[in-house]
Amino acid sequence: MNNSFDPVIILVEPQLGENIGAAARAMLNCGLTRMRIVRPRDGWPNERAVAAASGADAVIQGAEIFDSTSAAIADLNFVVATTARQRDMVKTILTPEAAAEELHARAAAEQRVGILFGPERTGLMNDDIPLADAVVTVPVNPAFSSINLAQSVLLIGYCWWRTRVQAEDRRLDIGNGRPATKIELDNLFQRLEIALEEGGFYTTEQQRPTMVRNMRNLLQRAQMTEQEVRTFHGVIVALNGTAGKAKAAKEKRRPR
Amino acid sequence: MNNSFDPVIILVEPQLGENIGAAARAMLNCGLTRMRIVRPRDGWPNERAVAAASGADAVIQGAEIFDSTSAAIADLNFVVATTARQRDMVKTILTPEAAAEELHARAAAEQRVGILFGPERTGLMNDDIPLADAVVTVPVNPAFSSINLAQSVLLIGYCWWRTRVQAEDRRLDIGNGRPATKIELDNLFQRLEIALEEGGFYTTEQQRPTMVRNMRNLLQRAQMTEQEVRTFHGVIVALNGTAGKAKAAKEKRRPR
Repeated sequence: MNNSFDPVIILVEPQLGENIGAAARAMLNCGLTRMRIVRPRDGWPNERAVAAASGADAVIQGAEIFDSTSAAIADLNFVVATTARQRDMVKTILTPEAAAEELHARAAAEQRVGILFGPERTGLMNDDIPLADAVVTVPVNPAFSSINLAQSVLLIGYCWWRTRVQAEDRRLDIGNGRPATKIELDNLFQRLEIALEEGGFYTTEQQRPTMVRNMRNLLQRAQMTEQEVRTFHGVIVALNGTAGKAKAAKEKRRPR
Repeated sequence: MNNSFDPVIILVEPQLGENIGAAARAMLNCGLTRMRIVRPRDGWPNERAVAAASGADAVIQGAEIFDSTSAAIADLNFVVATTARQRDMVKTILTPEAAAEELHARAAAEQRVGILFGPERTGLMNDDIPLADAVVTVPVNPAFSSINLAQSVLLIGYCWWRTRVQAEDRRLDIGNGRPATKIELDNLFQRLEIALEEGGFYTTEQQRPTMVRNMRNLLQRAQMTEQEVRTFHGVIVALNGTAGKAKAAKEKRRPR
């Protein structure tokens, strides 16, 4: 995980140890481990940073301290600077997503890359901006755009992490189970329809086909597992007064 | 902004006022204003929540308090539950991006939607999960997947905000300036080439065309503004010893 082409997170003059620690936690959430700190206000090491890291101690312990921003980025090839404020400078502005793509592409080309974050109250100084190749601005609510330091680290770190880590947008978690087969579902539906017939559910023969289709569509939508189909058989038995008590009891003993 | 189809953020049994406040700030960063809280541990109102909101006071003041999760979501049509832990349940799992798309689509269809967040230490209880239509899990570093409550609100809120707010991935901020025209650039390049010629830069006539092309490519890449072209003329004059002192001084007085 500690890849020398992963982005270095550089905190410039952070004020609160809590924020340094929360930033370390956010970094590790996103698989980032290389932290550098320029002139931390309250010195270093900082107990509050360790406490706020909530287990990301390795990031805090591995943090490197520098006297100046230029020293902290001296060995890097490509650096972006985060800022919420509009600066009166001619500068390329990237979204976090675009910055993540560029950092990823440059790291893939074995460039050393980094991301600058400014102090909590003021953000990066104007003199730090020209040190960077581009500015990253998170396009949040323009009426309330001040993001907490660690929140900013997480957002930009997450965008970077997502360029590397594929995740299925949507999946049904069925644990150790398996999806029901269509014959298992058909058997269930037929059993239900017989029980409903017996219970007088279908008021007219004319409506019956539509009612059957609607109910099958509803239950199909649930994407039942094989276990859930078995459970549902038990539900029908339990609800259906026409089934004998003995049979219902037998169904109940099955693991649900 | 206070749209009744925007997602409601529901914090279930939050422990620390600081986290409620930070969550409110994160919400407002993403244009979300509707907070509901189920059984806040330290009661309500909470001074620490106000302090940590860093200006998102309206979100805190508008927060509604409920006795149970089911009461807090009673009027909603579609609810997702955030969880980091794998649950032994058959449940649809969404990425924040996919959840954001679905929340957006359902709100567009005038459904009332919400997002559940559990207590800091444990996350949502198993009994809260079935109340939701789907689970949202942020696909972070599996070796360190515990995200701070407010961080989680920000990440999911940001994904939602980004489905609504278009932002140019990459743009050159030139403030009130305007990009240079190609004739302005060509004049600059020609002036530079004359000065370089006079300075003995082109060692052989054979290499000259390549050196000219390379330098033009380099300067073209900088995407200069009209103002920067003028400044660069001054740079050439200042560097070029063959130009008279008087001419250099005259150039210097131009606004840069």
